[in-house]
Amino acid sequence: MAAPWAHRYAQRTKTVKSSIIRELLKLTQRPEVISFAGGLPAPEVFPVARFQEACHRVLATQASTALQYGPTEGYRPLRELIVAHMARYGILASVDNILITAGSQQALDLIAKLLINRGDRILVESPTYLGALQAFDLMGAEYVTVPADQDGLQTCNMEEALRSGPKFMYVLPNFQNPGGTTLSRPRRDELVALSDKYGIPIVEDDPYGQLRYEGEHITPLVVLDRINVARDDGYKLGNVIYLSTFSKVLAPGLRVAWIVAPPDVIGKLVQIKQSTDLHTSTFTQMVTYEAARDGFIDEHVKLIRATYKERRDAMLAALNDFFPPEVSWTHPQGGLFLWATMPPGVDSSRLLDLALRQNVAFVPGQPFYPNGDPGSHMRLNFSNAQPEMIREGIRRLSIAVAHELEHRSAEVIV
Amino acid sequence: MAAPWAHRYAQRTKTVKSSIIRELLKLTQRPEVISFAGGLPAPEVFPVARFQEACHRVLATQASTALQYGPTEGYRPLRELIVAHMARYGILASVDNILITAGSQQALDLIAKLLINRGDRILVESPTYLGALQAFDLMGAEYVTVPADQDGLQTCNMEEALRSGPKFMYVLPNFQNPGGTTLSRPRRDELVALSDKYGIPIVEDDPYGQLRYEGEHITPLVVLDRINVARDDGYKLGNVIYLSTFSKVLAPGLRVAWIVAPPDVIGKLVQIKQSTDLHTSTFTQMVTYEAARDGFIDEHVKLIRATYKERRDAMLAALNDFFPPEVSWTHPQGGLFLWATMPPGVDSSRLLDLALRQNVAFVPGQPFYPNGDPGSHMRLNFSNAQPEMIREGIRRLSIAVAHELEHRSAEVIV
Repeated sequence: MAAPWAHRYAQRTKTVKSSIIRELLKLTQRPEVISFAGGLPAPEVFPVARFQEACHRVLATQASTALQYGPTEGYRPLRELIVAHMARYGILASVDNILITAGSQQALDLIAKLLINRGDRILVESPTYLGALQAFDLMGAEYVTVPADQDGLQTCNMEEALRSGPKFMYVLPNFQNPGGTTLSRPRRDELVALSDKYGIPIVEDDPYGQLRYEGEHITPLVVLDRINVARDDGYKLGNVIYLSTFSKVLAPGLRVAWIVAPPDVIGKLVQIKQSTDLHTSTFTQMVTYEAARDGFIDEHVKLIRATYKERRDAMLAALNDFFPPEVSWTHPQGGLFLWATMPPGVDSSRLLDLALRQNVAFVPGQPFYPNGDPGSHMRLNFSNAQPEMIREGIRRLSIAVAHELEHRSAEVIV
Repeated sequence: MAAPWAHRYAQRTKTVKSSIIRELLKLTQRPEVISFAGGLPAPEVFPVARFQEACHRVLATQASTALQYGPTEGYRPLRELIVAHMARYGILASVDNILITAGSQQALDLIAKLLINRGDRILVESPTYLGALQAFDLMGAEYVTVPADQDGLQTCNMEEALRSGPKFMYVLPNFQNPGGTTLSRPRRDELVALSDKYGIPIVEDDPYGQLRYEGEHITPLVVLDRINVARDDGYKLGNVIYLSTFSKVLAPGLRVAWIVAPPDVIGKLVQIKQSTDLHTSTFTQMVTYEAARDGFIDEHVKLIRATYKERRDAMLAALNDFFPPEVSWTHPQGGLFLWATMPPGVDSSRLLDLALRQNVAFVPGQPFYPNGDPGSHMRLNFSNAQPEMIREGIRRLSIAVAHELEHRSAEVIV
């Protein structure tokens, strides 16, 4: 039953829809379901003992700071740690380039508030991260899309999209969610040059950058931007807002991430964040700092890489063994997701239904396309389940796929 | 130096201004300053040992839940605990009436997103909580104000404001921030009846309800609404959205608060929160639950009440001893703030300047009035400093006040 004052909802709420992924997650809570639907890290790699120690130390030595209100910008030692951490990847920022956020989802909310007027067009990859679309939708965004292939966003095909005047570009260059693809170095150079040519800023979302299982690290856009655009005026950072997070290298349950941007942009985002939640939990920031310090993340991430590489390989092998030749899939060099493409005519909602009957779940491709899925896709997460469960899940999923392909053939014949 | 793309900021950011209070807090970091400016709880009453125990227990027994992504609605046992906690204050809700938020500031952000279209009028008390104005400003709110006196919002003077068609009313009935005043029972009845008559929902912000130092508890609006408006259709809750928080009864650094609303409104707010930050930290929610459970809050709040009552009394006594008769102040029955009114002609910004030279700080009244301060006021926090420091701070402040009154007299003579 609706509230007697439901007619008072703001216009922006018309675009609000619950994430299909989160609704799916509810269905997949049944213990017999093997879920490839979420984007959950493996609980086996949570550094629990390190967190125990960190909580104890923070509360034993700095409780009155940790439990009190804190600055909106974030806990300064954590911001300094992030500066040092990023420097190893060539991202040369200073503390006044950093804002701590409650996960990267909040970064997207703050950026949407900063930049989007109702009706503004945002340039996104097609497909792109569903959570970004949700945050942008809420501020009234519309979209201009650029298709992506195995090398990411097709930069050769985007000048028309850029001429249509998007407010900014949203790009996930490493091991994209949902595609699992990585933007190649030549395309990165081209993208940064286009950003400079058209004066259109880039939001570079990089939650998985450290989780590479093969191949060479590729320079982030935020670094290329500094090289290509001569900054002899001493301006710190340029056209790129860079996002990253502790969710995939420590644990998502703490909700600690960060934004890198020019200091005046950070200043504006701080004011917006102040109105949004005052500041991110002082306690979780200090615990994150204590857990991450002294090079812990770089050591720990080796374990995560080894674990996830094994799971990715298990999924690729199982797909190869069980799936019919009409289905193709990406070969992600890192990250958490793999993207499978069905032959034309497959209905991925119906396929999901069949899969759930086999006690296995995935996310259909549709919600990742702001303007509708031109084909039929599945996003498959490989980080959460153990290798033998992945193999069993793909086996079950192949049964559902076979049923759906039969069904489709029957339809075509009829 | 502004970003080369600063012209791309959205229209809503024009209204964004940094909280004067938070800027002030930076000035008052000097250890020699006695600050009555913030709204900080006393660190002496943080239950540190209880939190140590809670963190240890959560990580020892439920780490893989605590460190993982969680449901947007919040951690279910915490929502159940809140239901039981509120029932003792007569607020009869069920779990599906509760959404966990990252502090009450986030509750205000989510409500602003749900209800405010650019240009919508919101009815607020004058003065009112600055942080609410900031959250509403960001979604483009305008304001219609109703004056408040010692008994809170003047309900007898608000029909004209209601006829102007506000989207909702925002009210802080207990120990208001900044006024320190409490809405009387007859006015609560009248307010709920007016809300029903005009069909205008109320946002009831109640962060301090449990912190009463004298007098009797007064029934919250959300309860009166259920009594006055016959709900024989079984609809759960009515025209009131109720907000409360663990910030003042446990610790603000965890950022855990909650919204009570009809289930369909909660459903919409959950979708909005999902786009905003996915969910509040699973870990801090579980730690809050472990710390709060088994009746701990009701025991602990006795210590907080005793501590703050002593500090309030110290401030009232010092004001009485040191302040000139031209200045008046409220007598808060609870909460964290007291509100002082200067005689006409006093410039409270200049007074703040004089005060900072005496190493004492307060917040001038101006930012609490959406349409400008008609007089000259100071908000004085009494929860953070110890009684002897409060006395010393008020002594110093009285020197600044005396200077300003002289200055003003000189001006009047000139």
